[in-house]
Order: sequence, then C-alpha cells, then structure tokens
Amino acid sequence: MTGILAGLRIVEGSAFIAAPLGGMTLAQLGADVIRFDDIQGGLDSDRWPVTKDGRSIYWAGLNKGKRSIAVDLRHPKGREILTALIAAPGEGAGIFSTNMPARGWLSYESLAKHRPDLIALNIVGARDGSAHVDYTVNATTGFPMVTGPAGHQGPVNAVAPPWDLATAYAGAMAILAAERHRRMTGQGQRIVLPLQDMALSVTSALGYIGEAVVNDIDRPRYGNEIFGTFGRDFRTRDGRYVMICIFSDRHVDALAAAGGFGEAFRQIEVETGQDLKTDAGRWRARDRLCAVIEPWVARLSAEEVGKALRQAGALWSPYRTFRELAADRESVLDNPMFTIVDQPGIGRYPVAATPLQFGAVPREAPRPAPVLGQHTDEILSAILGLPGHEIARLHDEKVVGGPR
Amino acid sequence: MTGILAGLRIVEGSAFIAAPLGGMTLAQLGADVIRFDDIQGGLDSDRWPVTKDGRSIYWAGLNKGKRSIAVDLRHPKGREILTALIAAPGEGAGIFSTNMPARGWLSYESLAKHRPDLIALNIVGARDGSAHVDYTVNATTGFPMVTGPAGHQGPVNAVAPPWDLATAYAGAMAILAAERHRRMTGQGQRIVLPLQDMALSVTSALGYIGEAVVNDIDRPRYGNEIFGTFGRDFRTRDGRYVMICIFSDRHVDALAAAGGFGEAFRQIEVETGQDLKTDAGRWRARDRLCAVIEPWVARLSAEEVGKALRQAGALWSPYRTFRELAADRESVLDNPMFTIVDQPGIGRYPVAATPLQFGAVPREAPRPAPVLGQHTDEILSAILGLPGHEIARLHDEKVVGGPR
Repeated sequence: MTGILAGLRIVEGSAFIAAPLGGMTLAQLGADVIRFDDIQGGLDSDRWPVTKDGRSIYWAGLNKGKRSIAVDLRHPKGREILTALIAAPGEGAGIFSTNMPARGWLSYESLAKHRPDLIALNIVGARDGSAHVDYTVNATTGFPMVTGPAGHQGPVNAVAPPWDLATAYAGAMAILAAERHRRMTGQGQRIVLPLQDMALSVTSALGYIGEAVVNDIDRPRYGNEIFGTFGRDFRTRDGRYVMICIFSDRHVDALAAAGGFGEAFRQIEVETGQDLKTDAGRWRARDRLCAVIEPWVARLSAEEVGKALRQAGALWSPYRTFRELAADRESVLDNPMFTIVDQPGIGRYPVAATPLQFGAVPREAPRPAPVLGQHTDEILSAILGLPGHEIARLHDEKVVGGPR
Repeated sequence: MTGILAGLRIVEGSAFIAAPLGGMTLAQLGADVIRFDDIQGGLDSDRWPVTKDGRSIYWAGLNKGKRSIAVDLRHPKGREILTALIAAPGEGAGIFSTNMPARGWLSYESLAKHRPDLIALNIVGARDGSAHVDYTVNATTGFPMVTGPAGHQGPVNAVAPPWDLATAYAGAMAILAAERHRRMTGQGQRIVLPLQDMALSVTSALGYIGEAVVNDIDRPRYGNEIFGTFGRDFRTRDGRYVMICIFSDRHVDALAAAGGFGEAFRQIEVETGQDLKTDAGRWRARDRLCAVIEPWVARLSAEEVGKALRQAGALWSPYRTFRELAADRESVLDNPMFTIVDQPGIGRYPVAATPLQFGAVPREAPRPAPVLGQHTDEILSAILGLPGHEIARLHDEKVVGGPR
C-alpha cells in the first residue's frame, strides 16, 4: 500500500451505504480496511443491483480494496477473534468503524478494555439510537417537498442518497480527526455520528431552516430551476435535454455569445429593470430568459447546442442515462480515474479509483472488492498470529469462514 | 477553541457550497478557518435565500464559525498579504483550501515558494479545469433520468446537492489526510478534487455504472420506490405523506405488527412464491405489499399511522416541509445540536453545530458567520504582526476592508 493513508488500519462492521462507503474511501487512499461479516454474509451482501446470477454489483462497488474476514458473530470465539482484531496493537491500528448496533461485546466500553486508546466511529440512525436510512431521514428534512416537477403533488425522493454520502465522507474525516488527536495526546475516543443529525446540519447550513424561520415561508417547488439564480433543463430538437446555468457574469456573456442573445438580454434588462449580472436579477427575470433560450435550444440538435455552448464557454451539461455515461469517453472511458476491473463473479467493467489526487503519492488503481472471507486466513495469521492448525480448527468448528 | 481540530489553521478562498461547507465543517470542529474575500464580497455574498433586506441567509449558513478577512484581490499589496497569510508559519498552519482558479499568485507553485510544506486543496469543476457546478455534474451522472415520478418525461434535478456535499466532506477529509502525511514526513502537497470525478466515483461505487455495463440495461424510473427492496411514500386520510421502508427481517415483522398485516403478508408469500425476508422477494412482491399497506394508511390520520408504526418499531418517517421541520421539537427545538443563534443582520433562528460527537471534547455550540472583513484587523495584527498604523494605512489605501 502506497496511498496517502498507508499505515492506517480500520476494522469495519457495516452494511448498506454510509459506513461501507466511508471505509472504501479510506481503503482507496491506502488504509488497510478490514470489513468483517457474519459467516453467512452481511445484511447487504445480496443487495440490488445484482447480476443475472444474483451477485451484488452494489456490494462490489462499496467494498473495493478492502480485506474481508468472515466470522460466526454469535459464537463466543468469533467475537473473541474480532475483539482481538479491533484492539490489535500498532500505531495506526485500533480504529473501529461501524453502523451495527454497538452494544454488548461491540460497545465502546467492552472493546476499550482491550485497547484503551481505541478510536470507534459509531454511525447511528437518530441521536436516540433509533433506526433511520437515507430515505426516512430525507423525508424529515423537507427536501422531497421541493424536489420534482413544479405543480407535482406529494413528495419526490432522492435517488442519489445525499445523507448517506455526507455521512460516509464526514465519518471518514472524523476518523482522521480522532487519529490526529490520538497522535497528539495518546487518547482514544468514541465518535457518534447520527445520520439524521448529519442531514439536519446540512439543511441548516444550506439556509433552509433560517429561511423558513426568518422569512416565515415554505419555499415552493420550483421544478428543475436553480433557486435564486438562473438554471434549468431545456429540450433539444432531437428530444435530448441539456442543463444550462448562470452563476457569474462570465456565464451571462458566454450564454449570450453561444446563442446570439446579446441584444435580447439587453432588452430584458431594459424592460424588467433587472440586472442580469446579479443573482437576484437573473432569478426575477428567469421567465424572460427562458423565453429566449427555449426556442433556440428547440431549433437545434443536442450536438449543435453542445457545440455552441462549449465554444462560448457557457456553464452547461447534457443529461445522460447511466448506460450513456458508462460508454462516455470523456467522463469514463478516457478518464484516468477509471480502470476496467475484473470483479470476480460479476465481470469486467469500468470502476473508479478515488477522485482525490494527492501530489505526494500516485493515485492507486481501483482494486476489486473481496469475496466474503477472502482474507480470513491471512488476517488470522498475520495480525492475530494464529498458527495454521488453529486456523484450520476454527474453520472446522465453523467459527470462521471463507474460501480455503 | 477547544474542538478536536484545535491548533489547525486553514485559509480559504471560496464561494458557493462545496468549498465553504468543507471549511465550515473544519471550523465547527475547532480549526481556525479564515475565509478571505474581495473587499467587495465574494461571488456568493448575496446568494439566495436572502432576507427582506437582501442579506444572504445562505452565506450565513455556510460560513459559521469562520474568521473573515477582506482584501482587494487585484491589488499587489492585497495579494502579498494573502500570500503571507496562507504561508504563515506554525505547525498547524500553511493549509489553503480553494475553489477559486488556482492560477498565477494563487497557484500552488507560487504559494509554495513562501512555504515549501504548504498543503493546498484545489476543488475544480472537471479534471481538465473546466467549470462545473452540482447541477451540471448531476446531469452527467444519470441520476436525473431516474429521479421523479414514474412515467415522468425528462430529467428531475436534485435540490439537496449530493455532489457538493460529497466534495465538501471528502475535501475536508483530504486536508486531514495531507496534514497527517506532513506530520509524518514534513512534506506538503497539492490536492486536486474535481467535482465531476467526485460524482462519478460515487456513481461507480453505488453500482450504477456496473449495472449498466454488466446487465446492459438502463434502470427505469421507479418513482419514490426504493430499488431492490421495499419502500415508498403513502398518503394518509388527512392528506399527509409517510415514507415506509423495509431493510431487514425486523422491519417486515414490525410493519406487519403495526398494521395487522401478518396474515396478508403470509398470503402474499404463498401466492407469489416470494420470501418477504429477502430484498429480492420484497422487491418482486412490492405491488402486492402496496395493495395491503395503501388502504390501511389511507384510512388513518397521520397521527394514527405514526403512532402505530412507532410503537411497532417499523422503519418509517413522516414527510415535512422546511417550515414544519424548523418548528419540530424532536428534530430541531429539542435537539442539542441546535442553538438559537443571533446572526447579525439576519435575526435569531435555530442553527446546527457539527453532527459529530467526539467523546474526547465537548461539542461546541454553533458560532455565527462573520460579517465581511470582521476579523481583518485582528488577523493582520496577530498573525502577520502588522502594527496599528500600517493596518490603518492599508484601510486608507483600500487594500483591506472590514468594519473598523
């Protein structure tokens, strides 16, 4: 391992998105991330999307570059092994990340008996420990009531899970913050990160709670428009969609150049009294802007629209489906972040490394996800120092599992 | 400052969401985060939502707990001051985070001349340096084509910006990773984080690219349903909405108990041959499950539905608007993460601290965002060691700004 986090070891007890993605992020930066699962597989081992044979493409995506140990989680000896693994000595070791219920033998108190400077990140649903997933948390934030087509009744859920993503990366960051603290003070600690609080803190940071209280309004549903500036989807002659935005002066001029809108924009400014070089002006005059841009886009093919916008340096993007994305040169096939990986049991497809480029170390190519228990033996041997005959007995007694 | 990151100083040149939110995250953990802006204010200083007087609630939310220095960014002396600030000595100093174009005097090469072990995080749009925002990146990922009501034509944009959030927290994490590396090796470095690569790496991690390639399909739009298990919104008698999900065996039993669905669920299993205790079984039998749950929810008030689901321990949540959220006891008013803050120029409203609870240090209450240039003088004096008369002259020459 040569990544920026080489020397760090994290033991992970996880399922679904937030905790595994946080661990995978650290693994792709060079940390030795060991995910443990029950000998039967975790809650998410068969999670969709799956291949025709039922192999989880989802699991493969979220556990890349980790090592896997499979243990009977109900067996006292299985628990003993994992406790020893979590509390194993070493400067960069003794870090535990989980979204499993951290009770009993997995509680911080129990584990810290074996390693007083243990760092444990516990991702929980709500702060009272009750269960939550991205979907339920999202419902409470208010976002589903302002997402989706204007005029639509009822909520619109997010598909890209914003709160899982925030929790994954904030959790990974928290582990590094605690590791820094431990290096400076020798002190370990438990970190609690409630998924719901994560979502609420972002909702607060983005101004939604402040707006509701200070202005005493519920923001309406603005469809695909970007609130408070200019941006929307437009449909091309050939039935494709493009997103066109304005976030700065430069984007106003570029858009005007792309479509020859200079005179039309000036007229909008004169007639509405709005300054299109300000956020507020663009937002207030957005219907007028759309009335100019919409027919231009509708007259052209997606290729023609793209060419004009690109040449002018406008802020825009075509919309794509996932299949179109997977076949796109610029985004995927020619992107050095992607490598074609052969994922055992699933197949060959483009897989992303970390998006972070650290100047001090080269970016590691993505490694496949392990199969369940792939590293059981090497972990028992190299980290816990168990001799071969003991490892064999643990397999015979079905305390541990994995391909032999 | 007593937070977990006390002793760290980050100079930030930023606008919009990803970079300011990353900095705010570190500030709320106790780092000294100094945001610099042009003497006229940054690109996002008036960004909506705003108060009736045009004060940006958005800006206030994303810059909490930072210090603000205002400098004429075109003036050679202004640039000299910021260079000295970014390169200021100190073990936890010499960290620069930006999503401004890192060219010329703000390039890593120029800045590192003044501090060879400088750490700089450059958040860029695409990897080639071209501009992108969450909305344009989102269009390229494929998510807008599977978000929104089933049967809807065209894209549905995200309102909660998933890629800005991921970039903010991954960027904050990257700074800590580089700081660890510097502590161990003495070496600084430039880190590049393209917003687009961030989004594409998550799209890869969540299995969407693998699914498209391996199964050669474009996933259809499933409306508010959770793909591959059971979950959807339901409408109550009084016109409210609730999200009800199943992610584990326990949730099946709890839901059955809440609504008295035990026999109906057994019948579904017999008639469809699906095992509701598996993801695949629930997903395949989802229409049947909905046919049982929908009329039950429709017969009851939101309060009655909530009571039954809560008592049974089901995985569910009511949908709320932002105004309802702001007034909610459990989520906001009684949540120790929130404090009523008096934000100068805006007013008093509940504001969130960090969602992270570190065992080793108490959580700091949220601090308000600064007004532009609020800390110009104290920074020039305490960090750069400028005497009062020089600071006064810089104000007179309009090289720096801020309330005096």
